[in-house]
Amino acid sequence: MNTKFKQLIDTFDQKKIDALLITKDVNIRYLTGFAACESWLLVCRKKVFYITDFRYVLEARQGLAGIASVKQYKKSIYAGLFDLVEKGGVKRLGFDENCFTVAQYKVLKKMCSSGVKLCAANNCVEVFRETKDIQEVKHIREALKIHGQAYNMLKKVVRPGLSERDILLKLENFVKAKGAGFSFDTIIASGPNSCYPHAHVTDRKLRRDEPVLIDMGIDLNGYKSDLTRMFFLGRMPQLVRQVNDHVDQSQRRAIAKIKAGVPVADVDRAARSYLAKHRLAKYFGHALGHGVGLDIHEDPRLSQKSPAFLKSGMVITVEPAVYIPEQFGIRIEDMVLVTENGCEILSDNIH
Amino acid sequence: MNTKFKQLIDTFDQKKIDALLITKDVNIRYLTGFAACESWLLVCRKKVFYITDFRYVLEARQGLAGIASVKQYKKSIYAGLFDLVEKGGVKRLGFDENCFTVAQYKVLKKMCSSGVKLCAANNCVEVFRETKDIQEVKHIREALKIHGQAYNMLKKVVRPGLSERDILLKLENFVKAKGAGFSFDTIIASGPNSCYPHAHVTDRKLRRDEPVLIDMGIDLNGYKSDLTRMFFLGRMPQLVRQVNDHVDQSQRRAIAKIKAGVPVADVDRAARSYLAKHRLAKYFGHALGHGVGLDIHEDPRLSQKSPAFLKSGMVITVEPAVYIPEQFGIRIEDMVLVTENGCEILSDNIH
Repeated sequence: MNTKFKQLIDTFDQKKIDALLITKDVNIRYLTGFAACESWLLVCRKKVFYITDFRYVLEARQGLAGIASVKQYKKSIYAGLFDLVEKGGVKRLGFDENCFTVAQYKVLKKMCSSGVKLCAANNCVEVFRETKDIQEVKHIREALKIHGQAYNMLKKVVRPGLSERDILLKLENFVKAKGAGFSFDTIIASGPNSCYPHAHVTDRKLRRDEPVLIDMGIDLNGYKSDLTRMFFLGRMPQLVRQVNDHVDQSQRRAIAKIKAGVPVADVDRAARSYLAKHRLAKYFGHALGHGVGLDIHEDPRLSQKSPAFLKSGMVITVEPAVYIPEQFGIRIEDMVLVTENGCEILSDNIH
Repeated sequence: MNTKFKQLIDTFDQKKIDALLITKDVNIRYLTGFAACESWLLVCRKKVFYITDFRYVLEARQGLAGIASVKQYKKSIYAGLFDLVEKGGVKRLGFDENCFTVAQYKVLKKMCSSGVKLCAANNCVEVFRETKDIQEVKHIREALKIHGQAYNMLKKVVRPGLSERDILLKLENFVKAKGAGFSFDTIIASGPNSCYPHAHVTDRKLRRDEPVLIDMGIDLNGYKSDLTRMFFLGRMPQLVRQVNDHVDQSQRRAIAKIKAGVPVADVDRAARSYLAKHRLAKYFGHALGHGVGLDIHEDPRLSQKSPAFLKSGMVITVEPAVYIPEQFGIRIEDMVLVTENGCEILSDNIH
């Protein structure tokens, strides 16, 4: 059993459970290294089971050799689960309330063997995933390396006359040819389209003297990158230049705050209060950033409301923005590794 | 208010609700035509509200003009919802148990205004989505048209020496250049890889005298296609040819059964019992097919256990298969429109 499983099982006493059901693909991948799909993991104190059906059983036996015992269910995944629960003498089974719909929970409860209690045990794996180990940071750096190469390619093709979709196609060809994928739908928002924080790619052609916002993420072996860069095609109106400088400054102030032990709300506030001084805070409607790893959005969320503190090993985005309705938007997003004494900007060489 | 909303509201009495909360993007898209994102729809008897935040509010006001009243929430989407529920005097609010996790339901219940009862009202929109209207069938035909073009391109490039990933890249370039997307991760499974029903694309190079299974789906304006085709590179071993003939025959037998009013289990049985006669049924571990529309997998499921009946206007896949472990797999999948007197094979011209 690897260290990750041991750490997880060490929390069972405190959670008053003797086994934990894990149904989320990325959590299974985090624990086992195997890219799970439509299958469940049952972590008992002494043994780990992967419950799957005939479609995935061959792959799973290969990918999980020495890590988990692969059990193929026939009737239903619920029946497969409780078969193991009974055989293993599990009395208190932990499950995550975020991973079962109300309808699924009803089935879980109905199928639950007598003498077994279902115990809410939420975010048990997510807690560990918040901070990245050396291997994980290496994976993220590898995703960022391809991100940097893609960005260099973009610098050559983001030109007036091409459409947002033209650029998307070139980007996709480039990234796929590197054997990588995307961690979310790329945003390429030109001119006024950039005022939509989550703009969809359109057939609009880029024009001279306008800003273009490109927000993209690479997915390499499950680990993600997430950066936003602005392109300025020609001369910018004074307002665009000013707003861009302010967003840049607000990001610097936020990053200067980052260090293990600091409340995440303080980091958000550093950016937001700078923008407020320049009467731009009302145009910045979302949180400052979020954790990135196997999921594109994971804990911590860098919002004003969050009670969380930064920890060494967290990898977070810092993405202040200003969206002037119907005119333009500026967002600058980098990825930062939190350390004991400050931070490292992982995306510092991509510009 | 369009016909779809009227039909939906007509079911409120029977469900004993006076408003319905819809949170699933595709259901909102089905009702409104607007590609929703992270937003909720509240359908009251007299009025429809779209509850969203500042990120999407500009797009939503444009896209939903004349269809729904767009309300921007500030604190939380739950607060935004119950604000409208109170103002509208809603007493019995329907919600879908399949669309809320246990954790989300707890928040919903906690935030619920006093005097309002939450009522389980599941699959209210899915029921209508099962059968497609003329416009929807047209959308699906358009997706299939691009699918056919992509397939013709594939016929030229599926050759020994290229890797599965090489082919994927060519396919993706082709489809994206047409302004379309994919409805799921394409399966390109060569030689022994084809024995995995949900194989991942690898760097394996195609070889002479082996089968290649390609399962792909186009997404055009939200509507999907889903077809599997086999490519045979050179001479096939006798077993491959025999199995292919049997899978083809089992599909013909299933399609011959299709007609409004027939139990879906009968269609599945037609294929399965034919395979059983040839001692191949044990290698066919999944259901025969599924509905396709705005979702790649929707009702009805064509399984032995299903109590559902075919209805005119359903668009379903028929995909019998035989997977010989560690050797090869054969799957043949077509899309079929159910009619009063039989069916139309929508993908008949793609071969």
